[in-house]
Amino acid sequence: MIKVAVMGYGTIGSGVVEVLNINHDSIAKRAGNEIEVKYVLDLRDFPGDPIQDKVVHDYNIIANDPEVSIVVETMGGVEPAYTFVKAMLEAGKHVTTSNKALVADKGAELIALAKEKNVNFFFEASVGGGIPIIRSLNTCLAADEIEEITGILNGTTNYMMTKMSEEGSEFADVLKDAQDKGYAEKDPTADIEGHDACRKIAILTSLVCGQQVDFNDIYTEGITKVSATDIKYAKKMGRAIKLLASSKKAADGYSAMVAPFLLSPEHPLYNVNDVFNAVFVHGNVLGDGMFYGSGAGKLPTASAVAADIVDIARNLEPNKNTQVEWKAEKLTLVDYKKAENAFFVRTSESKEKIAEVFGSVEYVEVEEVAGEIGFVTGVMTEADFAAKSEALGNVLSAIRVGK
Amino acid sequence: MIKVAVMGYGTIGSGVVEVLNINHDSIAKRAGNEIEVKYVLDLRDFPGDPIQDKVVHDYNIIANDPEVSIVVETMGGVEPAYTFVKAMLEAGKHVTTSNKALVADKGAELIALAKEKNVNFFFEASVGGGIPIIRSLNTCLAADEIEEITGILNGTTNYMMTKMSEEGSEFADVLKDAQDKGYAEKDPTADIEGHDACRKIAILTSLVCGQQVDFNDIYTEGITKVSATDIKYAKKMGRAIKLLASSKKAADGYSAMVAPFLLSPEHPLYNVNDVFNAVFVHGNVLGDGMFYGSGAGKLPTASAVAADIVDIARNLEPNKNTQVEWKAEKLTLVDYKKAENAFFVRTSESKEKIAEVFGSVEYVEVEEVAGEIGFVTGVMTEADFAAKSEALGNVLSAIRVGK
Repeated sequence: MIKVAVMGYGTIGSGVVEVLNINHDSIAKRAGNEIEVKYVLDLRDFPGDPIQDKVVHDYNIIANDPEVSIVVETMGGVEPAYTFVKAMLEAGKHVTTSNKALVADKGAELIALAKEKNVNFFFEASVGGGIPIIRSLNTCLAADEIEEITGILNGTTNYMMTKMSEEGSEFADVLKDAQDKGYAEKDPTADIEGHDACRKIAILTSLVCGQQVDFNDIYTEGITKVSATDIKYAKKMGRAIKLLASSKKAADGYSAMVAPFLLSPEHPLYNVNDVFNAVFVHGNVLGDGMFYGSGAGKLPTASAVAADIVDIARNLEPNKNTQVEWKAEKLTLVDYKKAENAFFVRTSESKEKIAEVFGSVEYVEVEEVAGEIGFVTGVMTEADFAAKSEALGNVLSAIRVGK
Repeated sequence: MIKVAVMGYGTIGSGVVEVLNINHDSIAKRAGNEIEVKYVLDLRDFPGDPIQDKVVHDYNIIANDPEVSIVVETMGGVEPAYTFVKAMLEAGKHVTTSNKALVADKGAELIALAKEKNVNFFFEASVGGGIPIIRSLNTCLAADEIEEITGILNGTTNYMMTKMSEEGSEFADVLKDAQDKGYAEKDPTADIEGHDACRKIAILTSLVCGQQVDFNDIYTEGITKVSATDIKYAKKMGRAIKLLASSKKAADGYSAMVAPFLLSPEHPLYNVNDVFNAVFVHGNVLGDGMFYGSGAGKLPTASAVAADIVDIARNLEPNKNTQVEWKAEKLTLVDYKKAENAFFVRTSESKEKIAEVFGSVEYVEVEEVAGEIGFVTGVMTEADFAAKSEALGNVLSAIRVGK
């Protein structure tokens, strides 16, 4: 019998308990042992809940109980999760977390600590919910140099982009709809400004390059400026607008960016709709690959945590640390201004002015939109584009064009 | 330094050597040790090839060399691969193989032997080339009950179906094109009759249910009967024809089938074109997931073998067997005649006759096709459909309709 403690009994934490119950027998078979939740750490009590007698309010009870070998952290936020997780690793317990803020900020340190203590710090559920991208990068793609990772890593904004595209509605309206449906939070900033996707691509990039990538260094643009008019132009071009979080390996290092992109139907992420997430990967020997699934949600995310538990359970007695390359040494990203993209631009300036500044471009005109014109530039650096936009004058919107 | 032997220096085997060279440094970092190829076993010699001095012709040299800890089997076919692999496991060596015939036939036995010897028998590359579906089933999705796996598991036939759809060409013409391009073999039977996909879905089903699934028990229909006229009807319906290999968990057990299906654009596999493979998975807690990538090809497949090598390297000293649930006890599949599907049918019979036999159906008419009519039946068992087809009379073609 393997004893587990769950820290944080919110949506994901209670989901983990549920998954361990629903699939109790098959999980026991695959883990080679029965898994039992011994403690649930939370500030609250849960009278009437089957776990009511397991609730504790002091994390030291868990840290000091030698019977507990695996700790699940599903509290969210850096503190106090960091203090608690550190204490658990120090006490020789394996940890799995769904907490992207914690992993993006303290990943390297906690991985090193786990290695030192010969236990594991796993975080499959921190990126892409039910999509097994972390374990894939660490094991299945371990023989590849990953040259590109591009993901739709935020379900809320993908739902909103899908809705805007299907219904032609404005940003504010789909945001309200997403909030009503519970897909977006009351304060939606982290989702719609791209901060959530940014932390996730920081984690994936760290795993790819083996060093700490600071999410503050990643140029991040949300979807708040995308309008119903932009969508009209996108449709005219036969493209879809998606919030992409991307990281690429170039000759001079790694670059990363979060921003809306116009994708063509040929792009593997074009068809990823609603709250689904997907991650496109290009490896130097693998070629193109794509992982698709539920990026969030109680059970899919809990499924990823529970899979971590099974993996840990297989590496107990004796404890075995699974090597994860993610050093604390910070990676300096290539300045995003050097990144090259084509841009779709809407402007009220004349074709003459456009040609003067951007040279030969591809015009996009939408009949029912008057007093402006759209065009697609050639591929240029972000710096070039910024300068040319300035020179053009009145830019109504600018969206990067993906493959 | 970890010493590896490669048995079979064909496309995949030489690809493995190439991948180990190209990504030598990053693989060493992730494996925690340098990987060196010590032997290449082949009937042939390879004068001028960098591995010319490593070639041996007797597998006992490898089996008896205590320096070799990992053996790669990329020979293909059940014998002599089975004899060689067994000898390597008996000698306490870890094995990774890309050989689907071997795994489908002897998987349970070799997994048991590896466990007994406390080594690993890995076979990521045997299904889906560069798509990490095997490791995902064993680890990432270990907390799920997998209720459905449906895959496009054969690149040759998918290329052919894509070509037929894009160009309106006939089966014989695209087959010739595929042979000219090297996608199809001179004797294309294994691909076009579905035997290759059948072995692969047998392997995946064995992993899902934890027991031996005999590929001979799986109802298998290839793509040889799909015509340019069928494609015309498919287009009229807004659907694509794909050769699917599918396995589902029902109340009374597992069912499996390989056959062409008409897919709607909403199906996650609809957009999988050319030589790409993809696997759709539905887990009871995960929900829907999809893995997409190169299903074959030298380097993608070799990348999967090399990832197995890295995983094994991390589990050396002391050797650690990774648990894989696949018992020798044979699973009796649910009789395919009980499987339920809707069917698209082309017939020269009258609408009256169709209505008499099938009741209310959805007609599909294609202007340029005269003397026949298409229709889609309601959902019924295979047995029902067979009986009704017989009663209808002249059935020109019948293709199952997917979601």
